Amino acid sequence: MRVGVMGTGTVGRVIGARFAELGHDVTIGTRDVDALLARTEPDQMGNEPFASWSEKHPEVKVDTFAGAAASAELLVNATNGAGSLEAMRAAGEQNLDGKVLIDIANPLDVSAGMPPTLFVSNTDSLGEQIQRAFPAVKVVKALNTMNAHVMADPSLVAGGEHTVFVSGDDERAKGQVTEILRSFGWKHILDLGDITTARGTEMYLPLWLRIWGALGSGAFNVAVVQ
Amino acid sequence: MRVGVMGTGTVGRVIGARFAELGHDVTIGTRDVDALLARTEPDQMGNEPFASWSEKHPEVKVDTFAGAAASAELLVNATNGAGSLEAMRAAGEQNLDGKVLIDIANPLDVSAGMPPTLFVSNTDSLGEQIQRAFPAVKVVKALNTMNAHVMADPSLVAGGEHTVFVSGDDERAKGQVTEILRSFGWKHILDLGDITTARGTEMYLPLWLRIWGALGSGAFNVAVVQ
Repeated sequence: MRVGVMGTGTVGRVIGARFAELGHDVTIGTRDVDALLARTEPDQMGNEPFASWSEKHPEVKVDTFAGAAASAELLVNATNGAGSLEAMRAAGEQNLDGKVLIDIANPLDVSAGMPPTLFVSNTDSLGEQIQRAFPAVKVVKALNTMNAHVMADPSLVAGGEHTVFVSGDDERAKGQVTEILRSFGWKHILDLGDITTARGTEMYLPLWLRIWGALGSGAFNVAVVQ
Repeated sequence: MRVGVMGTGTVGRVIGARFAELGHDVTIGTRDVDALLARTEPDQMGNEPFASWSEKHPEVKVDTFAGAAASAELLVNATNGAGSLEAMRAAGEQNLDGKVLIDIANPLDVSAGMPPTLFVSNTDSLGEQIQRAFPAVKVVKALNTMNAHVMADPSLVAGGEHTVFVSGDDERAKGQVTEILRSFGWKHILDLGDITTARGTEMYLPLWLRIWGALGSGAFNVAVVQ
């Protein structure tokens, strides 16, 4: 499957490489390809420059948001939440409409320091904002509740005995995303309901951040147990 | 130990009865004892009238907020979050100051229907509001992330292999609450840090509500796994 991953940070890289490892044809999208590849300093999160990552992952192509979206059969939003709508607009409705979008982004606001707050929550969510702005895109919120390495390979934690959530309005799209999650190794996939339930998983982030702080490691997840 | 439980809903009843079962001297506090005992209809959550519950639990005393707090060595806030500060004011600073308060309340706002939103979140929390309003009370946020029956007896779910969080500024108070949680049967108690980390556990409620909806049962919890 041709997968277009928007976002060049840790999540975009790790998820992109995972899709490629599973045999998919992956293109990572960015605003300005030349500027991205010209950077020689680590990004603000301390990741190695994209160009050096890209050299190690020649199987993952790089293109503009529009270029990555145009040929994609499946889209992944792995951008910084604050830039997600802009990235989608740059990709262009004609390249997005009718497609399934796995929305991994969280509405984190780091402008007041750490830990971040959420720039939308409680009565709305980033997932809903994206769905409203692009009504012909089939938005499925998923994978936004754990770190990138655990997203891509849940067996890294507790033998994979933990939970990933999906939220979305389109049942077939959720079914397709569920199959993809299974291919990543996810065994426990909980469908929370329509896209408004993304409020739940996005509002979990403040707890996730404190658990991370308490454990001193992002290599964890929660298992819903009964 | 003498325990003063503020709140006569499900949480107050179940937690009060659990403390009594464990040998503590429990008084449940309410705004107006006569009015509470005069009610013959189920409450808005469908609970049986307090008077008939009370007849089955003669070991749990009932008093005003001030009366329940005055003699207590340990306080529990099991009120509706919207009424917590008012209940604390009715209890009176002189009856609260210097004591440990287990704050179970959540800032749920049901005024716009279900599922509820939060009336404080993101940059503040109910736990912090209570701590600021009563700086001499040792507030420990705990048990606000599962239903009352699971709070009181974690063995009801997955053999007790799941997680309860504690947040608070006073290390000795958190140590005391940790001992109490162990006496309830909690095996996995995660200290998230100071009272600001209550933002995390309170903001988890919207996810908790959606998981409840997806599972069709409140008899669940999350286990933090590594």
